[in-house]
Amino acid sequence: MKSYRKELWFNVPARRAFINITGQVRECLRDSGIKEGLVLINAMHITASVFINDDESGLHRDFETWLEQLAPHAPIDHYRHNDTGEDNADAHIKRQVMGREVVVAITEGDLDFGTWEQIFYGEFDGKRKKRVLVKIIGE
Amino acid sequence: MKSYRKELWFNVPARRAFINITGQVRECLRDSGIKEGLVLINAMHITASVFINDDESGLHRDFETWLEQLAPHAPIDHYRHNDTGEDNADAHIKRQVMGREVVVAITEGDLDFGTWEQIFYGEFDGKRKKRVLVKIIGE
Amino acid sequence: MKSYRKELWFNVPARRAFINITGQVRECLRDSGIKEGLVLINAMHITASVFINDDESGLHRDFETWLEQLAPHAPIDHYRHNDTGEDNADAHIKRQVMGREVVVAITEGDLDFGTWEQIFYGEFDGKRKKRVLVKIIGE
Repeated sequence: MKSYRKELWFNVPARRAFINITGQVRECLRDSGIKEGLVLINAMHITASVFINDDESGLHRDFETWLEQLAPHAPIDHYRHNDTGEDNADAHIKRQVMGREVVVAITEGDLDFGTWEQIFYGEFDGKRKKRVLVKIIGE
Repeated sequence: MKSYRKELWFNVPARRAFINITGQVRECLRDSGIKEGLVLINAMHITASVFINDDESGLHRDFETWLEQLAPHAPIDHYRHNDTGEDNADAHIKRQVMGREVVVAITEGDLDFGTWEQIFYGEFDGKRKKRVLVKIIGE
Repeated sequence: MKSYRKELWFNVPARRAFINITGQVRECLRDSGIKEGLVLINAMHITASVFINDDESGLHRDFETWLEQLAPHAPIDHYRHNDTGEDNADAHIKRQVMGREVVVAITEGDLDFGTWEQIFYGEFDGKRKKRVLVKIIGE
């Protein structure tokens, strides 16, 4: 069994954003030399997500609108977590809805994807450096 | 390390449905000959889910009602994704809530499940051929 | 490839609670002797979750409030699942939002975690014995 590990770093200038990281994950896979196995891609922060969906800007606006309605950022004092001095309780909840991680099959050295599957980093509390872990195991 | 891959195909006649695929995954496991490892089961489409819950028709109706309230299909023009000519923005959101994939432990050649765990394909934009990937790694 | 399996048992005295199980998972990892690989941690019940987020009591209260608003326990007869004599339809839905499982990378014999990542058992229908599965594969 072979294993491979890499951190991807992000510094999103806005509070929230969705960034397509499929190319970076493919690069990791090439570097690893692994042909058959599984790749885990997870946010290393608890106010960010990694998820798989469509790379379509209208849909991303729909996600943003829907999440903000589901767990609004303001009023800040609506959340007990924010009594600690934080203002990111909503980001912890949004990340929970969108998910921490994805696991993707590796077949014949490539991501084993359907036609429209793309991997995204979902930032919900940005304006600082944050990381995603790519871990690959297989042969 | 051994690996195994199979696609399961579905053509759901309705827009939305939940289909129990536990038997089909067990068949894959038997075919693979793998006794210890992990199995990844994921939708290959971004308007469908794979998830684990109860095989109880009342609960499935509750999921349907709850999801439709959370991210209604209509009015179509409520979603920016649908400006592209699609009408399935709600399906992308519903799939995100229910999840893309599950990872299940394999122990002594069987799915390592609790009493009531069953695997479902969740269709949110049906009436066409769509697939689920089963990928098994182990020994 | 090595594999390791352990069940963690819980008997939560309340209907709902979040329990930090990071220490117990680390103990499993030490017992396994596995240095590189993946660990799957999943609820074996369909009214409970395993998820990764912050160990902060205010945030846990926010999760509780938010989930109860999203899928209220009462009125019981709001849910078709409860026509079967159960009263836990809300717990099935809450578990779906918070997730069944997490997959965590193992690197150099430890959980490959960001600074604030902690693993929780989320109970949504307690007052009875329930289990979590820890399955590790690697080398």
